[in-house]
Amino acid sequence: MENRKIQYSGKYLKLETFPIQHPDGRTGNREIVHVRDAVGVLLLDDSNQVHLVKQFRHAIDKELLEVPAGLLDPGESPEDCAVRECEEETGYYPQKLHKLLHYAHAEGYSTGFTTLYLGTNLRHTGKIQLDESEYLTQHIMPLNHLIKLIYKNEILDSKTILCTLLGQHYLQNRLE
Amino acid sequence: MENRKIQYSGKYLKLETFPIQHPDGRTGNREIVHVRDAVGVLLLDDSNQVHLVKQFRHAIDKELLEVPAGLLDPGESPEDCAVRECEEETGYYPQKLHKLLHYAHAEGYSTGFTTLYLGTNLRHTGKIQLDESEYLTQHIMPLNHLIKLIYKNEILDSKTILCTLLGQHYLQNRLE
Repeated sequence: MENRKIQYSGKYLKLETFPIQHPDGRTGNREIVHVRDAVGVLLLDDSNQVHLVKQFRHAIDKELLEVPAGLLDPGESPEDCAVRECEEETGYYPQKLHKLLHYAHAEGYSTGFTTLYLGTNLRHTGKIQLDESEYLTQHIMPLNHLIKLIYKNEILDSKTILCTLLGQHYLQNRLE
Repeated sequence: MENRKIQYSGKYLKLETFPIQHPDGRTGNREIVHVRDAVGVLLLDDSNQVHLVKQFRHAIDKELLEVPAGLLDPGESPEDCAVRECEEETGYYPQKLHKLLHYAHAEGYSTGFTTLYLGTNLRHTGKIQLDESEYLTQHIMPLNHLIKLIYKNEILDSKTILCTLLGQHYLQNRLE
């Protein structure tokens, strides 16, 4: 489309502006950010313990407890990224992945989609490997406790909440 | 903090870059967007029908079916915004609001928080009033049908999925 303009292009974000036309003929402008797609994994071991990470999120100035997650490398599949991020962030990787959801996390202004998985049959390698821009710590808790934290609004990011609620629903329906 | 730079400042988005230091002494850079906070409402009538809107989302190039939602006006409370957006987008406003969740929708790169509500005891005014940048249509369906669409991954935005799952959980536990 003509009149599209890249206003900023950085390492993670590219900001673009462009004019739009609605079906009724009215016009407007949009400002969007291009970001890399991401994954998140509800990483659950055989004892029903969830493997989580805690990290400081500068954009919202808060430390969050989250499921392992990360951005797709160029050419990488969401499944490969999910397994890789689990191992790099927790030292465990799932030998089994079940896809829970593919969703737009900020549909109003971002191109970003996140794919969520339930990861089970964990294998421990201990190969924690954080990239240069990461600093995080590992935390383990029972799935039921994480669900309680969600209903108390103590978990703040969409991927962790969605992963956990949809993972719980999948597990319950598989067992019934 | 020094060395913070505004790289772009538009109508909806402001993009800022700044250096960070991790607890272990390593340094890095962050790119974030400042956005206005938002609300979303699971708008449920006495017949268990949900009032939704469909709109084209240019950032992801798709038409989405969503709960009524919008950005807080300067100085506006999330509750006032929730009631206003419901009426402007659907012609109905909730006389009762129950807060379901306050969450960060893109914690890695955006300042944005969204507050979600269950809205009930609807009053019909018919005063649909879309702002200059909006074009959307109204849709009504049973809550159970919306839940099925979510588990089939046919609903793509985090606010609608979270609103619906948390609203359903709240209603179930209130009735038990």
